[in-house]
This record gives sequence, C-alpha cells and structure tokens, in this order.
Amino acid sequence: MRSWAKVFVAVPDKAGKIMKKHFNLIMDIISSLATSVIAILIPLEMVIPVDPGYVATIYIITTVILMVDFLRNIKLYREQKESHATQNILTKSQTPTILAVDFLGSLPIGLITGSPLAGIIQLVKIGRIAQYQTYWNRQTVRWSDYQRLGFFMFWIALITHWLACGWLGLHTYTGNSDSLTLYIRSLYWSVVTLTTVGYGDIVPSGNLETLYSMMVMIVGVGVYGYVIGNVAHILASRDPAKLAFMNNMEQLKAFVRYRDLPLELQNKIRDYYAYLWQKRMGHTETEFLEGLPKSLREDVERYLKRRILDKIPLFKGASDAFLDAIAFRLQPVLATPGDFIIREHEEGNEMYIIIKGRLKGYKSARPDQVFYLEDGNFFGEIALIHKEPRTANIQAVTYCDLYILERETFEFVLEQYPEIAERIRQTAEARIKGDG
Amino acid sequence: MRSWAKVFVAVPDKAGKIMKKHFNLIMDIISSLATSVIAILIPLEMVIPVDPGYVATIYIITTVILMVDFLRNIKLYREQKESHATQNILTKSQTPTILAVDFLGSLPIGLITGSPLAGIIQLVKIGRIAQYQTYWNRQTVRWSDYQRLGFFMFWIALITHWLACGWLGLHTYTGNSDSLTLYIRSLYWSVVTLTTVGYGDIVPSGNLETLYSMMVMIVGVGVYGYVIGNVAHILASRDPAKLAFMNNMEQLKAFVRYRDLPLELQNKIRDYYAYLWQKRMGHTETEFLEGLPKSLREDVERYLKRRILDKIPLFKGASDAFLDAIAFRLQPVLATPGDFIIREHEEGNEMYIIIKGRLKGYKSARPDQVFYLEDGNFFGEIALIHKEPRTANIQAVTYCDLYILERETFEFVLEQYPEIAERIRQTAEARIKGDG
Amino acid sequence: MRSWAKVFVAVPDKAGKIMKKHFNLIMDIISSLATSVIAILIPLEMVIPVDPGYVATIYIITTVILMVDFLRNIKLYREQKESHATQNILTKSQTPTILAVDFLGSLPIGLITGSPLAGIIQLVKIGRIAQYQTYWNRQTVRWSDYQRLGFFMFWIALITHWLACGWLGLHTYTGNSDSLTLYIRSLYWSVVTLTTVGYGDIVPSGNLETLYSMMVMIVGVGVYGYVIGNVAHILASRDPAKLAFMNNMEQLKAFVRYRDLPLELQNKIRDYYAYLWQKRMGHTETEFLEGLPKSLREDVERYLKRRILDKIPLFKGASDAFLDAIAFRLQPVLATPGDFIIREHEEGNEMYIIIKGRLKGYKSARPDQVFYLEDGNFFGEIALIHKEPRTANIQAVTYCDLYILERETFEFVLEQYPEIAERIRQTAEARIKGDG
Amino acid sequence: MRSWAKVFVAVPDKAGKIMKKHFNLIMDIISSLATSVIAILIPLEMVIPVDPGYVATIYIITTVILMVDFLRNIKLYREQKESHATQNILTKSQTPTILAVDFLGSLPIGLITGSPLAGIIQLVKIGRIAQYQTYWNRQTVRWSDYQRLGFFMFWIALITHWLACGWLGLHTYTGNSDSLTLYIRSLYWSVVTLTTVGYGDIVPSGNLETLYSMMVMIVGVGVYGYVIGNVAHILASRDPAKLAFMNNMEQLKAFVRYRDLPLELQNKIRDYYAYLWQKRMGHTETEFLEGLPKSLREDVERYLKRRILDKIPLFKGASDAFLDAIAFRLQPVLATPGDFIIREHEEGNEMYIIIKGRLKGYKSARPDQVFYLEDGNFFGEIALIHKEPRTANIQAVTYCDLYILERETFEFVLEQYPEIAERIRQTAEARIKGDG
Repeated sequence: MRSWAKVFVAVPDKAGKIMKKHFNLIMDIISSLATSVIAILIPLEMVIPVDPGYVATIYIITTVILMVDFLRNIKLYREQKESHATQNILTKSQTPTILAVDFLGSLPIGLITGSPLAGIIQLVKIGRIAQYQTYWNRQTVRWSDYQRLGFFMFWIALITHWLACGWLGLHTYTGNSDSLTLYIRSLYWSVVTLTTVGYGDIVPSGNLETLYSMMVMIVGVGVYGYVIGNVAHILASRDPAKLAFMNNMEQLKAFVRYRDLPLELQNKIRDYYAYLWQKRMGHTETEFLEGLPKSLREDVERYLKRRILDKIPLFKGASDAFLDAIAFRLQPVLATPGDFIIREHEEGNEMYIIIKGRLKGYKSARPDQVFYLEDGNFFGEIALIHKEPRTANIQAVTYCDLYILERETFEFVLEQYPEIAERIRQTAEARIKGDG
Repeated sequence: MRSWAKVFVAVPDKAGKIMKKHFNLIMDIISSLATSVIAILIPLEMVIPVDPGYVATIYIITTVILMVDFLRNIKLYREQKESHATQNILTKSQTPTILAVDFLGSLPIGLITGSPLAGIIQLVKIGRIAQYQTYWNRQTVRWSDYQRLGFFMFWIALITHWLACGWLGLHTYTGNSDSLTLYIRSLYWSVVTLTTVGYGDIVPSGNLETLYSMMVMIVGVGVYGYVIGNVAHILASRDPAKLAFMNNMEQLKAFVRYRDLPLELQNKIRDYYAYLWQKRMGHTETEFLEGLPKSLREDVERYLKRRILDKIPLFKGASDAFLDAIAFRLQPVLATPGDFIIREHEEGNEMYIIIKGRLKGYKSARPDQVFYLEDGNFFGEIALIHKEPRTANIQAVTYCDLYILERETFEFVLEQYPEIAERIRQTAEARIKGDG
Repeated sequence: MRSWAKVFVAVPDKAGKIMKKHFNLIMDIISSLATSVIAILIPLEMVIPVDPGYVATIYIITTVILMVDFLRNIKLYREQKESHATQNILTKSQTPTILAVDFLGSLPIGLITGSPLAGIIQLVKIGRIAQYQTYWNRQTVRWSDYQRLGFFMFWIALITHWLACGWLGLHTYTGNSDSLTLYIRSLYWSVVTLTTVGYGDIVPSGNLETLYSMMVMIVGVGVYGYVIGNVAHILASRDPAKLAFMNNMEQLKAFVRYRDLPLELQNKIRDYYAYLWQKRMGHTETEFLEGLPKSLREDVERYLKRRILDKIPLFKGASDAFLDAIAFRLQPVLATPGDFIIREHEEGNEMYIIIKGRLKGYKSARPDQVFYLEDGNFFGEIALIHKEPRTANIQAVTYCDLYILERETFEFVLEQYPEIAERIRQTAEARIKGDG
Repeated sequence: MRSWAKVFVAVPDKAGKIMKKHFNLIMDIISSLATSVIAILIPLEMVIPVDPGYVATIYIITTVILMVDFLRNIKLYREQKESHATQNILTKSQTPTILAVDFLGSLPIGLITGSPLAGIIQLVKIGRIAQYQTYWNRQTVRWSDYQRLGFFMFWIALITHWLACGWLGLHTYTGNSDSLTLYIRSLYWSVVTLTTVGYGDIVPSGNLETLYSMMVMIVGVGVYGYVIGNVAHILASRDPAKLAFMNNMEQLKAFVRYRDLPLELQNKIRDYYAYLWQKRMGHTETEFLEGLPKSLREDVERYLKRRILDKIPLFKGASDAFLDAIAFRLQPVLATPGDFIIREHEEGNEMYIIIKGRLKGYKSARPDQVFYLEDGNFFGEIALIHKEPRTANIQAVTYCDLYILERETFEFVLEQYPEIAERIRQTAEARIKGDG
C-alpha cells in the first residue's frame, strides 16, 4: 500500500521535472525564433514599405511570446537567487541586466512610437540567441558540430540580411520594381560583395553608398576568411577515426615509397589499419582517459568492461560486486590473424577469454586435428588448474579481442565464486578427456 | 625627524620618476599622432587641392610637436650614453641615425620648398611608429592582442589611403566632382581592388594607370592573405581556457561516438571539463612554469600559494617567513563530487585544508549523522595527533580544492608555531568530544 | 603424374580468380564511366536541344552497361550473403538498397517517359561513384594522392557542369547563338562565379536568376576554400623525406643565425641532412613501426633485414631459418665520414659487416700503409676470435651503413654454422698473416 | 726553398679551384638569364610584331651563351663520368637527357625555321632553371628564404607573362593601339584574373577566348592559394627567436589572465623572455643538436665552447688539446638577477667562470663591504683548494652566463696545467689575504 502510494507521488513529480526541463528548452527555442523574426523584420520595415496589418500581427505575436519569456526569466532569476546555487559555465545565469535586455526586447517600441528606427532597440534581445548558442553548445556532446554549423549559417544569413537592408535604404534603383525584387537585388548585392565575387552590375553612386559598400567589403574579407577557416576546421575534425586511418595510410605510403615492401605485407598492414578503424580504436583514447581524474576514469572503465563481461556466458549469474571487482583485473589484448596465443609445451600463467574473434587449436603432433574457439569461449585454463605446460597450440584465425586473466585473478575467481570455478573445471576436464 | 625628512625627499623623487615615465609615454603617443597626421596629409596634398591655410596650420602644429619630440630624444640619447646602460630588446634605443630621422621628420620641407613632392622625405618619421609598435608590443603583457589588432588596422588603413592617393593622382575622373567625392571614389577603388571584390566600375585607362592597378592587385593578394591569416590567428588564440574546453569536448565527443557512454557519464565528464574551464586550469600552466628558471618559478609559486594561505583562518597571525616556508610543502589536490578523501578505519598520514568546496563527514556506523566542512576548514588532524586510524568518512559534495599537509609538514608546523598547533589540537579535541 | 594433374587444375583456377578480380575492377570502371556520361547528359538535355538520335544511342549503350552491372551486383550480393563473410571497411558491401539504386540508375526513365526531368532519378547512380572512390582510396597505398586529386577534379568539374546547366535553363541570352556557344557561356559564368573572379559580363536579370546566382556564390566560397585547403595539403604531404630535409635545413639556418658556425661545419651538417634524405631515412619510420602490433612489426623488420643479409657474401648458402634468426640480432649503425669505428689497442666486443660505404684501416705505427674495406666486407673479427685488443684503426671514408654483431651473436653464429665460422676464421688468419 | 716552391705551386692551384667553382656559378647564372630572356621573348614574338633586327640580335647573343653552356656541360658530364663520383642530392648531375635539353634549348629554331611557333621547343631549357633553383636551394643555408621568395616571384611573373601572351594572341582589342599598350592590357587582364579581382573591363568574346579565360581562372585559384600559403609560411618562419618570444609572451598572458600575477612579477618574467630572445636561446637548439650524429654534435659543441674559452684570460696560453679536453667538462649555467650562486658557510664542490654578466660578493657579517666580479673572472676556487666551506656570498646583479667547473675537472686542470693551477692559486691567496 505504502510503496504504491510512493509511486503515486513519485511518478508525477518526476514527470513534472522532465516536463519543466523540456518546457524551458521549448520556451528558449520559441523565444529565439520570435527574436529572429523581429531581427529580420525591424530593419526590413525601415527600408521598404511592408503591409502594416501583417507587421502589427507579427509584433503582437512576438510581444506576447517575449513577454511570457520575460516573466519566465524573472521566475528563473528568483529561483536561482533563492537556491544560492553555485553558478558555473554550464548554467544559463539570469542577472538583472539580462532581465532588462529581455524586457526591452519584448516591447514593440517601433510600433508604439510609430518610428521604425526606435524599434532597433528591440534588437538587443539578439544577444540572448548568442547566449543560448553558447549554452547549448556546451550542453551537447554528440551533435555539437552540426549545431555550430547551423548557428554559423544563421549568423551569416542575418548579417547578410542586415547589410542588404542597409543597401536598400541607401541605394536608388532605376526603373519601377516591386519591393520583393528590390529586396532580392539588395540581398544579391550583399552576397556578391561579401563573397568578393563582385560582378559590378550594382555599384554605389553617391558618397554615402560608396562608404557603405567599402565597409561591407572590409567586413567581407574577414567574414570570408572566417567562413573558410571554420567550415574547413569543422569538416576536418568530423571523423577522428577516419582521420587516424588516413594518417596511418599516409605513414604506410611514405614507408613503402622508401623501403619498397612487398604487396602482401602492404595489404596486411592496410588491413590492420582498417581493422583499427572499424573497431574505432585510436591512440587518442588513452590520452582522453588520462585527462580525467581517477574517480571518473574508473567509472568510464568499469562501464566499458562491464558491458563486455555481462555478455560472457562464463560469468552468467555472477553478482555485480564480483564483476566490478574482476573488471579491473582483466587486461585486454589484440591478436592479429596468424598470431600464436599459446604454444604447446610452453609455461603458462594466464587463461584467455575471447570477446570477439575466431581461433584454432591443435597439437603439434597432430596438426590436422583442428578445433575452433569463438566469442565467449575461454582457453588456457588447464595449465592454471593442473600447473602443467600448455597442452595445445592456439592460433588466431581472424582479428581477436581477448581478455587475459592472470593466475592471481584466476585464483581470486576460484576462491570467491565456486560456481564459476566449477564451470571452468568442468570445461578443463572435458577438454583433457576429449583430448585423451 | 630623520625618517620624516627621508619621506620628504623620497616622495617627490618617486613621483617625479613616475611623471617622467608617463611623460615619455604621452610624448610618444603625441608624436605618433602628429606623424600619422602628416603621413595622411602629405600624399593627399600632392593629388588634390587642399586649403593652404589649413595645411599651414597643421604643419606648424606638427612641426612644433615633432621638434619638441626631437629635442626630447636628443636628451634621452645623451642620458643613455652617459648611463652606459646595457641595451636590450625591451629598451627603445636612441641612435644618431634615429635622431637624424627625427630631425628630418620634423621639418615641414614641403611647405618650405613649396613642392609637396619634397615633403615625402618627412615620411621617414613613419618608421618611428613601427619602432614604438614593436616597443609597446613587447612591453604589454595583458592587452597585446588588442594592441596588435589596432596597429594592424592602422597600417592597413594607411596603405589603403596611400594607394588611393596614388590612384587619385593618376586617374582622370569624368564629370565635375568636388575633391571629397574624388578622394572617396579613389579610396573606394583602393578597397574594391585590395579586397579582390573588383566591381569594375572604376577601371584604369592609360598604360600608367594599368600598371599601377596591377601593382595594387598583386599587393592586394598578399595583404588579403596576411589579413585573413593574422586575424584568424589572433581570434583563435584569444582564450586558451575556452580552447582547452573545446578540445576536451571534442575528445569526449569522439570517445562517445565510438564507445557510446551513457548520458549520465557523458554529463559527469562534461561537468568536469566545465569546472576546469571555470577554475581556469589548463595543462599549459605546468609547461609555462617549467619554462621559467628556478628562482622565478619559486617567486610565482610563492605568490600564488601565499594568496590562498593568507585567507585560511588557521594561519591567521603567522609570520611571513613561516607562511613562505610551508607554502612549498603544501600539495594541492582536486576532488570531484563523490570522491572519498578519507575512509574510516584506514591509516592516515596527512591532514587536509579546504581551499574551496563542500565535503560531508559521517561514521559508517551512523550514516545519517552527517556533518559538513567548508572553505577554510581542515580535517584529518586526529589521525596525525593521536596516531590512530581515521575516525570518520569524508566525502566530497562539490568539486573541492584541498591542500594536503603531510605528516612531516604537520610536525614542522607543530614545532615552529605553537599557536597554530594549539588551534589544531583544540579542534581535534572538540571533534572527538562532539563525537563521543 | 599426380603433381602434373594438380598444376593442370590449379593454374586455370588461379588464373580464373585473377580474371574475376580484374573483371570486377574493369566492370566498376566501365559502369562508373557510363554513370558519368548520363550524369553529364541528363541535365544537359533538359536545357538545350540535343539531337534525339545521339541521345537515344547513348541511352541504349549506357542502359545495357548499367543493366549488366546491375545483374553482376545481384550476383555479388548473393555470393556475399552465402559466404557469411565478415564485412569490413575495405569490402564493397552490396545491400538491397544499393541494388535498388543500381536498378533505378540503369533505367533510361527520361527516354521512356519522354520527360527529361524524370531522367533525374537516374542520377542516384552517381552515389555509386562516391562509393567506388571511397573503396579504391582505401585499397591503394602508393598512388592514393593522385587518385584523390583526380576524383577531386572530377567532382569539381561535374558540379561546375551542373551549375552551368542550371544557369543555361534560367538565363535568356541575347542574340542568336548556337547551343555549343550557349553552353560554353554558361560554363564560363559558372567558373567566373565559383572562382570569385566575377567579371560581371554575364549577370542575372530576373529574381529567379538572382537567387540562383546567390546560391552559386555561397557554394563557391565553400568550394573555393575547400579546393585551396585540399590541394595545398596534398601537395605539402607529397614527399615527407624532402619535407624532413627542409625542416632540418630550417633548424640549421636558425642555429647558424644565432651561433654563427663556420661555413665548413655548416656544409658538413648540410651534407649529413642530404645523406639522410637520399637514404630516405626519417624519424617517422620508427614511429610507424611502433604503431604496428608486434607480429606485423617483426614481419616488416625481417623482410627489410633479410633483403640486406641475402646480399652479404659471408652468409651465402646459409639457411632461411638461420638468417631469420640472426636478422633480429644485428644492430644497424651509421658512421659519418671521419668517424673511428675501431681504435687500435682498445678492447673489442663486436665485429662489423659493411652494408654500404668505404672505410680505411691502418696501424697507428704505420699510418701510410692503408687498406680499404667496402660493401659486403666485415672487420673486427680478430678481437673476437683471439680475445685480444684491436689490431688496427678503422675509420669511415664515406657515409657507412654497418651492422654490429655482438660477441654473443658471433658465438651463436660460430656454433650454428660451422661453414660461416670457417669463412670468418680464414679471413682473420689471412689478415694476421698479411699483417705480420 | 722547398716550402717556398710548395706555396708557389699550391696558391695558383687553390686559386684555380676557387676560380673554377665561381666560373661554374657565374656560367649557371648567365645561362639562366639567357634562358629567361628567350622564355619571355619566344611567346611574345608569336603574338605581337617585334622588330626582327632586335630579335635576331638577342637570338644570336643567347645562342652563343647557351652553346657555350652546352659545351661546358658536356665537359662536366665527361668529368663526372670519369671521376665515378657518387651522385647525391646536393650534386647537379649531368645526364645525356639533360645535355639533349641543353642542345635543343640553345638552337634558335624559331629564327632558323622562320616560324615562331617552332621556337617553343627552345623553352625546354626552362627546366634547367628549375634544376638550378633546387640545387641552389639545397646549397644555401642562410639566405634560402629570400632565394625561395625570389624564385617564387620569378615563376609567378613568367606564368603571368605567358598567360598574357596567350590572351594577346586570342583576343581582338578594339581601337588602334600600339604593341606596348596591347601587351600591357593583356598583362593587366592576366593579373586581374589570376588575383580573382575580376574588374570585367576586358572580357572574352568568342568561344576560344572564353575557354582560355576559364582555364586561367582555374589556374588562378590554385596559384592564389599557393601564393598565400607559401608567402605566409616563409614570413612566419623567418625569425624563430622572435616567434619563441611571442609564444612565451602568449603563455605568460594566458597565465596572467587566469592567475592575476602582480605587475612586478609579470615584468620580471617578461624581462627573462626578452633576455632569452637577445641571447638567441631557444628550446629548439637542443633538439637540433640531438638530431645530429655524435661526431658532428661534438664538432659543433667544441667549436662553440672553444669560441668562449679562447677569450677567458685564465686559459691564456693553454694548448688546443687541453682546451678541447676541458670544453666538454664545463657545464653552462644561467643566473637571473638576484640569484645566489654561492652562500657563505655552505659546502662547495665547484668553481665558476663568468662568461658574461656582473655579480657582487660580500660576507654576511659585513654586507656593506661589497666587491664585484665581471666577464672573465672566476670564483669559488678557495673552497676547492683549501677544502673548506664557502667564504662569501656571491649574488647575480645582471643576467649571468657562467661555466661550472666540477671538483674533478678542477683537479684535472691542476694536474695537467701547472701554469693555470698557479694562476688560480695566486688569485685564491690574494683574495684570502685581502679578506683577512
């Protein structure tokens, strides 16, 4: 009864929290869109006649949205103040200044005063989009590149629009053209100039226009360089695994050019690099893990190893505590096709668990009697239990990911988990018998 | 009486020195401005008719300024020669050649000879601005980026102006236009060409103009590439802490894309990076410190540690010598939320001082009786005084900056500063009692 | 008889395999070419009148080719499915989606429906070229740069052609021009705009054209930056050995500028760098080898060392197993002209084999009696056999590549290969005798 | 008499060698210039009428020069063949192919056949300039940057000229213009297009012209990107010491922005960096030295240390062998102002030689009795001779470069060079006496 009541209380509470979180995100997006609309509209209505009816409607809608947003932000500001939460770079802080900006941005001043110029004051709200951009950029991990590219295009488009509006206000076009054509021609001039294409079919005529177009050109050089640099950087850093493959191949190419390896060896190395790529293993991972503090690094490693351990039949039914304990004692190892993992008659101090891959086993005396081992199998346990040399050769057929279990870890397992120990012993005996 | 007299002598002397230093800086700026004015004016008056009255007035003013500057530099030159000071890269050396340049630059030769062309000789003084730029750039540490950007724009603007004047002198504009319009058209041509926009509404007509515009274009390519490269570099290297955060996030993103960490772990790591950013800690700091010679590095470290030690109540009233002595014996350590700093019943050989952060303490037997520790508190002293195992668990609640005091340092403190030793002992006893 | 029969079966089988492999490559190339033809033709026939006879012929040919390709791919898909082969990044996988694309791409829909617009659906096949590009790029090691540059130009050309077709469809040219001229004018417009040259002799007139040309310009900025970045990167990374030489020279230059080395030393260092370049040795090789797993690295090293060992007369007739065994025991060493390898009367624990280079030997007592040693010779064996100090000085005349044979390896050789041991002993005795 | 005769034979021989070397260089330059002249002339005479008299004269002169060059190269080829010299990357090899190119390049085929087009075959000789460029670039150490920039401009200019000639041949200019004007207009078109300025005052009219200008634009994009990349790289890597200073300052700036060091410490660090710059010491030096093989590194180090040791009065009259011997035993050390080198009453195991800088010495008991030590002085010898603790404090006043002489080296000196030992002992006694 009591637990049922708990759920009854807990669920809506939790749902409410999620709702609230999403509510804030949705409100951020809606207010950003409304801000974008006025950022496009205000300069436009200063330079070309736009239907007052439409404009008024848009202003009313945006005013309502931005006013609601303003009230929401006041509420957030109060909550933040009350909670005495330590502000950090990831929180979207609300300060009185920001609230003032929100208030100014929500007032349709141009409409009230009747002067479109006064409306420019509403554009302060645009700073909020920049704030959201920074905030979202820091929040997202996986899609931040696309987000950055998107915002990047948004700002370029906005600046181009503003510059076009400026030109439209200054330049006198010959001939009778409707507003849309005039705006498109101005936008076209803006793009032609910013991209430094410079056809020269629309050129400035008075001093003011000349000075304005000079300013646009100077801006253009900077924008242009910035665009090229940024897009190139984002595109280049998109797929580090592929990049690592390309770099590896380039090193191989240089080596081959000097030393002239036979094609067979070249292909073997290329296949190895392709395997690394596919497994998405790069040398930057260790670097990444080393950059984390010890406790975080352990969390990450435990998560990654547990994901694999949970799938190994040998450990079925083992407790979480036990699995966590051995996770740190397992050493991963990679075998390339043809590698000998175990050689008959050699000393052995570890057993192996196969995560992925295919290996073949055979005794040197009878190389035609081959047996195969695959994902989830283990081998090398006989040498550990009976303390004798290896009884067979084990050779990798494909690329193999293995876990090494050192003797100590093995004995730790035997001690702690009789059930697992029993499973290993049974396999070992079955193998010796099948062998005899 | 004597010390009073000393102050009486010392203060004006010191004030005088500061005045003199500032006097030199102000004079440098004034003479640079005067030089800029003539660098703009001289080419201009060669190509368009400018009101002789205005020109003469400007020449008189700049001549006076530059003559005063010349005399000042002679004085500085004499002082440098007398002091036999070892010149280095940071001093603005005065040589006879430089003095000759100053003298030539200060004479209004164009006005005297009546030929504007002869005035060009005054432009040698422009080299002095380059000298000041180098000098100031080396002096300033904090604002050097903005300074460099500023000078960068100054040179681009000056070159554009000169190229415009050259074009104005060569090109014959059709129609009757006033001087200002002609100058603006020429400047516009200069910008259109340098930015490679190339509208083509103003094009060269004679051979001389054609050759001139070819030269401007070739210069343009270089300038353009240089501008893009430099501005991009300055913008990119502006905020290394943010850069480090972005790099960290990119590494995290790559890792997540390969290994697919759960969102919770992703956020924990992101928060850690954000914390690093906020604390403005980057891996380049150690590199920076290692690049300094031992004595300088110690100065920096002492300064930084003392700034923190001075705020810790425990050390209130301790002597400078004592604080300096233990500054090098304190090891900083960072704890992330959830980390255990101390575990009950374990051996302990150090105590901790909390610089910033919040930790909670509890005994394993009674996990509901929690006590909190905050900035300036210390803990772990019981194990050191009574030589017994830890008496409680201490776990970080927020990110915590702690100082570790090893047993040796602790004993050094006890020995050297009975007062502080007493404070620690009192806290320890209060804690044991409160606990009992 | 039996072995003859084996060959009879094996040869055609092997030849068949090679044929099949080449057959697939050739089919890939033919189908790519056919796809390129329709990718060029389809947009073209939408905007200018092309002779239906020619078009129909081309369509029939491409349809046949692409249909055959489609059937081949169905066969490949079945084979892949049957073989249960593990797909990796290097295999060109066939999925139902890809087969659907192949089928759509092979149908001359434009011709069938009579509407060129519908033909656009055939362009999906272009994605296959991108797939082949990726596949070939990963396959080739040595020529990948040129391949990448080639594909790069192909895509740029195709996009330029498409943009030109778009312009041709929108723009109304004045005057009577034939189709070829109109197409060339459009292609010219496309190039003028994409390269941001922007002459402005062909400019958009209506709103649609204006919007289209704006789009092309924005694409142009990206394409342009991408081209510059890529071509520069490929050119820069073409010859790493030369790059290493240039870097070395730059370091030398910087050092000389500070420290002012005499010309003789400068040249000696420069010659050393040139030698490194010629021998194609760079510091990146060790890095490359370290990046490989142990078994692969050993394969590469064995191959490289064996290539040299096989040419040394001393080891003529030795078994493969023996050569493999000592390959890992030989340490390479480089001597620069003038270096003393052996000094008389010093203790000696190794002998040397000359891979390449010229050395001179002499006794300190009789410096005029010089003897020379060259490629394939060995020296230093007397000290090892008779356990006495060095009997002569050996000094490098040119740059010398030597192999060091430590005492242990030497004794291993003596033991394992009496024949080689005998050769060494004979040489040693002949030398002592010639000496006495 | 005999030695006089030797000189008589040796001097002209040596002079002859130098002459011959210079002869080859001068001939290379002359033949390059002649090749450049025909590379400019041949395309020009194909497109504009040039005075046949002038052309013939130029052809005769260049033919003579290039024929002489051809004969000289035949001679060089024979010499190289005879000397069996090992070719390397630094030698300018002469092969039959190269000789054929030289022969073809020297024949005025255009003049002989009467068809300027046939003259194009002479342009093969241009490849020789590229060969010389590579050769010179590898030879020069100190001025290679300026050389590269020079050649770079040469090639750009030549390509621009060729493209201009191509345009001149295709385009029909309206109006009557003389040849010079036509050429300048074409050159102007070439520059306008290559720099992507694209005024559009000269545009292609026929299909051929259109295709030609498209080709030039596509080339232009590559050239443009290459120019920007290269010039930027050369400019950036010009002064590594300054670069190191800038980097250091940037690190300091970042550190200051985070940690807020007091101005005094900032300036101290800045002064240290400026000192490093002035002394031209950078961390890349050690890297450079480590890249050299042992024997070369020792040569460089011996040279550098000897240059300093030779100026120290203490070692006046010592033999070369002795100085070489101790050169490797002296450890350089840097002291910043205020550092204590020696503290009174401490143990001492080394003496110091001052290379550059000023230090002050005093006894702790009498801090007002200060003595100064300067360049070439040494100190710390009393503790070594009398085996007693330090007798005074020695503190750096300016930045000081010192050499440390460990006790062993000191004893080595005493043993080997009684004269120097005596000098040190005398100084030590004088100091103890002056002190007593």
